[in-house]
Amino acid sequence: MAGDGTDQRALQYEQTLMYGRYTQELGVYAKEEAARLRESGQRRSVSDRSRSLDLLEYDKGRCAKCRRSGYPYVLEPPARDFISVCTVRCQKFLISRVGEDWIFLILLGLLMALVSWAMDFCIAICLQAQKWMYGGLDSNVFLQYLAWVTYPVVLITFSAGFTQILAPQAVGSGIPEMKTILRGVVLKEYLTFKTFVAKVIGLTCALGSGMPLGKEGPFVHIASLCAALLSKFMSLFGGIYENESRNIEMLAAACAVGVGCCFAAPIGGVLFSIEVTSTFFAVRNYWRGFFAATFSAFIFRVLAVWNRDEETITALFKTRFRLDFPFDLQELPAFAVIGIASGFGGALFVYLNRLIVQFIRKQKAINRFLMKKRLLYPALVTLLVSTLTFPPGFGQFMAGKLTQKESLVTLLDNRTWAKQGIAEEFDYIGHSEAWIHPQVNVFVTLVLFIVMKFWMSALATTIPVPCGAFMPVFVIGAAFGRLVGESMAAWFPDGIHSDGTIYPIVPGGYAVVGAAALSGAVTHTVSTAVIVFELTGQISHILPVMIAVILANAVAQSLQPSLYDSIIRIKKLPYLPELGWGHHEKYNIRVEDIMVRDVRYITLACCYRDLHNVLLIGQLKTLALVESAESMILLGSIERAQLQSLLSQQLGRARRLEYIRERAAAEKKRLSVISNPGSEDEGRRVSQEVRFQISTEESSFSPTRPIPQKPLKPALKRASVVERPTEIPTNSQDNSGIALKNLFCASPDTEALEDDGDLEDDMTIREIAEWEEQQLDEQVNFSNCKIDPAPFQLVERTSLHKTHTIFSLLGLDHAYVTSIGRLIGVVSLKELRKAIEGSVTVKGVKVRPPLASFRDSGTSSSENEATELHKLWDRHKSMSLPREHTPSESDEKSQ
Amino acid sequence: MAGDGTDQRALQYEQTLMYGRYTQELGVYAKEEAARLRESGQRRSVSDRSRSLDLLEYDKGRCAKCRRSGYPYVLEPPARDFISVCTVRCQKFLISRVGEDWIFLILLGLLMALVSWAMDFCIAICLQAQKWMYGGLDSNVFLQYLAWVTYPVVLITFSAGFTQILAPQAVGSGIPEMKTILRGVVLKEYLTFKTFVAKVIGLTCALGSGMPLGKEGPFVHIASLCAALLSKFMSLFGGIYENESRNIEMLAAACAVGVGCCFAAPIGGVLFSIEVTSTFFAVRNYWRGFFAATFSAFIFRVLAVWNRDEETITALFKTRFRLDFPFDLQELPAFAVIGIASGFGGALFVYLNRLIVQFIRKQKAINRFLMKKRLLYPALVTLLVSTLTFPPGFGQFMAGKLTQKESLVTLLDNRTWAKQGIAEEFDYIGHSEAWIHPQVNVFVTLVLFIVMKFWMSALATTIPVPCGAFMPVFVIGAAFGRLVGESMAAWFPDGIHSDGTIYPIVPGGYAVVGAAALSGAVTHTVSTAVIVFELTGQISHILPVMIAVILANAVAQSLQPSLYDSIIRIKKLPYLPELGWGHHEKYNIRVEDIMVRDVRYITLACCYRDLHNVLLIGQLKTLALVESAESMILLGSIERAQLQSLLSQQLGRARRLEYIRERAAAEKKRLSVISNPGSEDEGRRVSQEVRFQISTEESSFSPTRPIPQKPLKPALKRASVVERPTEIPTNSQDNSGIALKNLFCASPDTEALEDDGDLEDDMTIREIAEWEEQQLDEQVNFSNCKIDPAPFQLVERTSLHKTHTIFSLLGLDHAYVTSIGRLIGVVSLKELRKAIEGSVTVKGVKVRPPLASFRDSGTSSSENEATELHKLWDRHKSMSLPREHTPSESDEKSQ
Repeated sequence: MAGDGTDQRALQYEQTLMYGRYTQELGVYAKEEAARLRESGQRRSVSDRSRSLDLLEYDKGRCAKCRRSGYPYVLEPPARDFISVCTVRCQKFLISRVGEDWIFLILLGLLMALVSWAMDFCIAICLQAQKWMYGGLDSNVFLQYLAWVTYPVVLITFSAGFTQILAPQAVGSGIPEMKTILRGVVLKEYLTFKTFVAKVIGLTCALGSGMPLGKEGPFVHIASLCAALLSKFMSLFGGIYENESRNIEMLAAACAVGVGCCFAAPIGGVLFSIEVTSTFFAVRNYWRGFFAATFSAFIFRVLAVWNRDEETITALFKTRFRLDFPFDLQELPAFAVIGIASGFGGALFVYLNRLIVQFIRKQKAINRFLMKKRLLYPALVTLLVSTLTFPPGFGQFMAGKLTQKESLVTLLDNRTWAKQGIAEEFDYIGHSEAWIHPQVNVFVTLVLFIVMKFWMSALATTIPVPCGAFMPVFVIGAAFGRLVGESMAAWFPDGIHSDGTIYPIVPGGYAVVGAAALSGAVTHTVSTAVIVFELTGQISHILPVMIAVILANAVAQSLQPSLYDSIIRIKKLPYLPELGWGHHEKYNIRVEDIMVRDVRYITLACCYRDLHNVLLIGQLKTLALVESAESMILLGSIERAQLQSLLSQQLGRARRLEYIRERAAAEKKRLSVISNPGSEDEGRRVSQEVRFQISTEESSFSPTRPIPQKPLKPALKRASVVERPTEIPTNSQDNSGIALKNLFCASPDTEALEDDGDLEDDMTIREIAEWEEQQLDEQVNFSNCKIDPAPFQLVERTSLHKTHTIFSLLGLDHAYVTSIGRLIGVVSLKELRKAIEGSVTVKGVKVRPPLASFRDSGTSSSENEATELHKLWDRHKSMSLPREHTPSESDEKSQ
Repeated sequence: MAGDGTDQRALQYEQTLMYGRYTQELGVYAKEEAARLRESGQRRSVSDRSRSLDLLEYDKGRCAKCRRSGYPYVLEPPARDFISVCTVRCQKFLISRVGEDWIFLILLGLLMALVSWAMDFCIAICLQAQKWMYGGLDSNVFLQYLAWVTYPVVLITFSAGFTQILAPQAVGSGIPEMKTILRGVVLKEYLTFKTFVAKVIGLTCALGSGMPLGKEGPFVHIASLCAALLSKFMSLFGGIYENESRNIEMLAAACAVGVGCCFAAPIGGVLFSIEVTSTFFAVRNYWRGFFAATFSAFIFRVLAVWNRDEETITALFKTRFRLDFPFDLQELPAFAVIGIASGFGGALFVYLNRLIVQFIRKQKAINRFLMKKRLLYPALVTLLVSTLTFPPGFGQFMAGKLTQKESLVTLLDNRTWAKQGIAEEFDYIGHSEAWIHPQVNVFVTLVLFIVMKFWMSALATTIPVPCGAFMPVFVIGAAFGRLVGESMAAWFPDGIHSDGTIYPIVPGGYAVVGAAALSGAVTHTVSTAVIVFELTGQISHILPVMIAVILANAVAQSLQPSLYDSIIRIKKLPYLPELGWGHHEKYNIRVEDIMVRDVRYITLACCYRDLHNVLLIGQLKTLALVESAESMILLGSIERAQLQSLLSQQLGRARRLEYIRERAAAEKKRLSVISNPGSEDEGRRVSQEVRFQISTEESSFSPTRPIPQKPLKPALKRASVVERPTEIPTNSQDNSGIALKNLFCASPDTEALEDDGDLEDDMTIREIAEWEEQQLDEQVNFSNCKIDPAPFQLVERTSLHKTHTIFSLLGLDHAYVTSIGRLIGVVSLKELRKAIEGSVTVKGVKVRPPLASFRDSGTSSSENEATELHKLWDRHKSMSLPREHTPSESDEKSQ
């Protein structure tokens, strides 16, 4: 229903849901019917259950704006019905007033703030426990090492195992998945309660281990999970939560809440979530994100105040930089250098991360071994990382004993570490002393920290636990900025500003710039700048930060995809890549260059055999319905599963049994007429029997109808998650075309419901084949079939740029290319993705996009465009009016 | 080309442009041809000019990725041609590398920063001049008053007169217009150089007068003007700037630059511009805004440093609030109160502003008088405002002598004005003393300031000069915040915090909160919060500001439209209103409730008379093309102008002359055959003559073809600006159906080009009428007609919410409602707007949307949806296959 809707996939999903429900209701109905026919002992419990189900369904149906089903399965008297309708309506009114968006958003914000705060609390306890163990064992270095290493290994292994068992979907950041979901693709297992539990507990353990992992990405996922669950919960009260597009809007707001309550950065959260998850952002959805994220951040910080951690609401990593003269104009080149270097660093990080994943995947021996012992890889990585950070060991040269949070606080310190001469005012209070080593310069410590943490973070984020990479990268960036800042401070001990007052250089400001730049480069966002301001509570360095972030983005975006896009590619999620910066050759590739011309279609007047053949050949999820092969006028599109069900209905056991029954009846009648021509009674009995049989046939027919559609849901879902060809085996049961034999073994449901055990399937295989052949020649009756009446259409001359925009805007999966009503091609996400990624291989023919820009300029003049239209139109004219002209099919074939 | 494109209107515009160009080229060609036939004296100059034009066109054609025209008007030898192609290609390569987006954005940023700085400089000088005059005349109060009042009156009158004469489009804020333009509507006069000059000079004078006017809104417009002009300028070098969707993207970036360089607030600028101008924001466009706005803000502030105004780059209105304890948790209710009160205040401001405009419009006497003396209204308003602010007069009670900037600086001061007891540390330095009156309490001053400035600003922004309302509202908000803050400080002299340290209340922080809240309420944006942080350089009050802004928005949005939407409504700009907050009944109105069922269509096989009739009846800009009246299969849509040109071609003078000529020739031949049957020579001569005539006919035919399309451009444009029915008079010339007589007076261009003066139009009116009748019965040949091959389609069950989304996303103007290929209705912006505004009056039938939610739930069940589809499908089946079934037209009519 592309033409109709925002969202092809979502709609497919909605349709699936509807069907699911429909099936379920029918199932309940059928069960009740079946039970009624059986003994009355069992009956009560079954019907009670189904009654209560019915009532629930009924209320829901009433509450929902549109009742989904008209089945008269509620047997209450009308009066009670009326009262219940009234109460439900009143309730509905109240809920529709009270249960508006803002209630939902407040609940979501509150919930997420509590989750965030509780998790932070648990993580802090975990980290303290490690410190306490390590500190308590200071008599023996080996024991210390054991404690230092075992603790994170156990935690990470537990986290990995727990998520693996409970919900493998909880692994990783979650932002790539949310990006895909917000595009309208249904990855439904990603938004379940199980995943929520797995993600929260897994993340707490993973972060509690002290590994260089972040909580931002997973928090986006957790918030979305919260929103989805809350939405499900709220839908018990009001119907509005069942709307799919509303759910998508709420998920978008939830992403903002996730970032917002993780960093207490509402504005940055909203912007970051927009940047990483959306392609086109609905501004009307903006306030939702702000509202929820602000509320969430507020509660998150208020909890800290109530817990006496803070005196009042302030920033998470508050800085105390000089306000009156934050930086000199001449320091800007240094900031620019940080930006550019961060750009390269960010690209390198993404590359390294992907390299590690690919290396492990490619090395089959390693892979096989690790697949067997899934928990070994996390344990090994953790062992390696924690060994290297062991404070008395190598860790002393890289501030190994500091947790991530402590490192960040010290790096953003507004004092200068490497200040020569004036040492008395710098007493290394707090954790800053960790950076100072008696033998080694602070610069060496910083460099070691940066280098070691860099690969450690890239490695650690490949561990299959819920984890993000934002925070580690942020810390590395801060360290890099600090390094540059300290260097500057050492170079210009009295600052650069020449006239009058001495304003020494503030290396902490450099750290802020570096943090924003590197995290911006890795995630390809500019809103890290805003996050940094909110995180530090100071906006004085706005211009350096913005300049560095933009430069970092420019460099990183031209070298590598963002970390999230990289993960999307690794995971092969169905997502449309972005058009690059200023790749204006994209404006010159047209749909005609990338479209598949050989469209699978079915005609209005086709027979089942055509259907069968079409289904046999392709694996497209939807097929075009055209008026006739001559006119090729596009009428709509039909889902593959619909056609499969049509076909299996036509060839199904039910119909065959009916055929047998009819044949038997006719035979019997003929026999009875022959044997006992006078006995009218007998004949009436037989015909009555036949009628009865037909009526049961009918009642059993309706439940059978949805059955072939049942596997549709998981098949669709799975096909959406990863495009692997699992569809065929699961669907082959329904697809009578692929395996006719499957039709012989009727599904158990059908068996149970069909009570006509008196009829024996006495047809031989040859007879069945004959019967099927005969059935296949019948004309298709599309009246039982859901047709999408307005699939999305493009024209040949639509540019790739525009097509990309439309696909992203509407979340399309495919679009038909038409020319004055005639279907001439189809473009799917696959073709588009290929075209964007630069290797346009349309069915074997390689069209190189760079050449498209050197296309003969004569062919695409505006005059020519008109001419071509007219040509098409003329061609069409001769096609669509076959009454007047002779249909020239050969003419069409020759093109 | 809705189905194909992002943007119906933009495409129409593009098409218009193409046509414009096409016509122009043909014009050049025709001129050259005509000149060649004339004497050679004139020839050289003309052809030289046209040659240079040709070359330019040619280069452009080559540079542009697709050459627009294939006319062989360049007569250079092939070698030179080759060289020129090579150089052009090299140039193109260089430009395509260098001339990418970022070059454009840097230029735009630089230009806007310079403009902003220069304007600020001029405004400062103007204001200083006023102060100087006022100060110099302190001996005589009357002279002082004269100086104080005359100066702004002169400036405002000049500004109003100047803009009125040069470009009336420059009047007002410009944000509503930009919002409309970014939606894809072409308001082309709004982006011309004239408007730029008028806006810059008008705005400088208006702000220099010291009236409560802002520069933000106009700056958005100025930046867009800059971008449009720069784009036009850059398109001389490279073809990429000719792409319409790119231009729209650049305009969006320009809006961000406008706000960014006005307040030196890049992030806030980007967000504010997104919020006020976009409905759906393309995230890929995000970096453009950030990049350009940052660069612009940077240059803007660097200019201040270079001019020795500042020591280094800092915020525009830097505050120096306490960092360690910005506010207490218990102060939050006060902030919330500011937010809610600001919400009501903002709504009141919008209402007041609209009321004033409507009052002046309605009072016909005033209106007529003011229309005559256009400059009187500005002068009167200025006189009133400046009289009231006269410092020795009433102005002393409302800090009248402070300029807007000075007021803001003093209001954001971090000291407390009303501090009782401790007075020694507060020495009222700078301008703060203006707030302190010996007789009157500071609270009274503040209240008077707020009340007076409130109505003054609402009044002043109705003056027809380039001006915005953001800054005045911002200042009023700050004053209100200050008032609350001072009250709190008076209430809790030692602060609220109880344990330990005394943290006094900071009224400046309240001022910041108030400023953000009120400006947010008036503009319906949350990004004012970000602007405030960037403007003050402090983010410590982030949570209070966010809370107040969100509350203010919630209140204001439920009471009134935003100021910009209000102006859009006042100006009747073609814009789609937003769906309100959580109006979830919108989900339940469907397209079938609002669509126009009586669609005007033309069939493939129609004759010119049908065309004529259709054009006579409706005034729709596009007409649907269906296969036949029985099948109603939608094939495409045709612009009205195209049909008009088809019709005028058919009935035009050219064809009639041809007819006369042929008739004459036939007559002559018949006569010559009769008179001189043997003379072959004569016959050949005649036939040669005829052939010659036909060939000139052909050459003169092509220039005539575009002529009827010429008025299309302004007609389209004007119709887009305000939907007034001016289309008919302008187009009646072409529309032979409306006024057949107009056809007799051929347009002068045609006359000049047609050299066949030997042929006399000797037909009588009756003959012409007969001939026309005969022509009208011919079948239409659509092959000369541009058909949009894939207009956008919806289905009946598409919800209003979804329809709104699609219309906003794709910038549609209308969409056809189809059901399995059959056209059943049409929805245009008008219907949608009506439906959203709550009064769905579809052709007289009032459908109340609130009732839609109480719609019989049975009819919209999913089962029913399927049934309806099938019904439609069945109906269609009987329609579309008239070969098999009898066409049941009556069946359709009866529905």
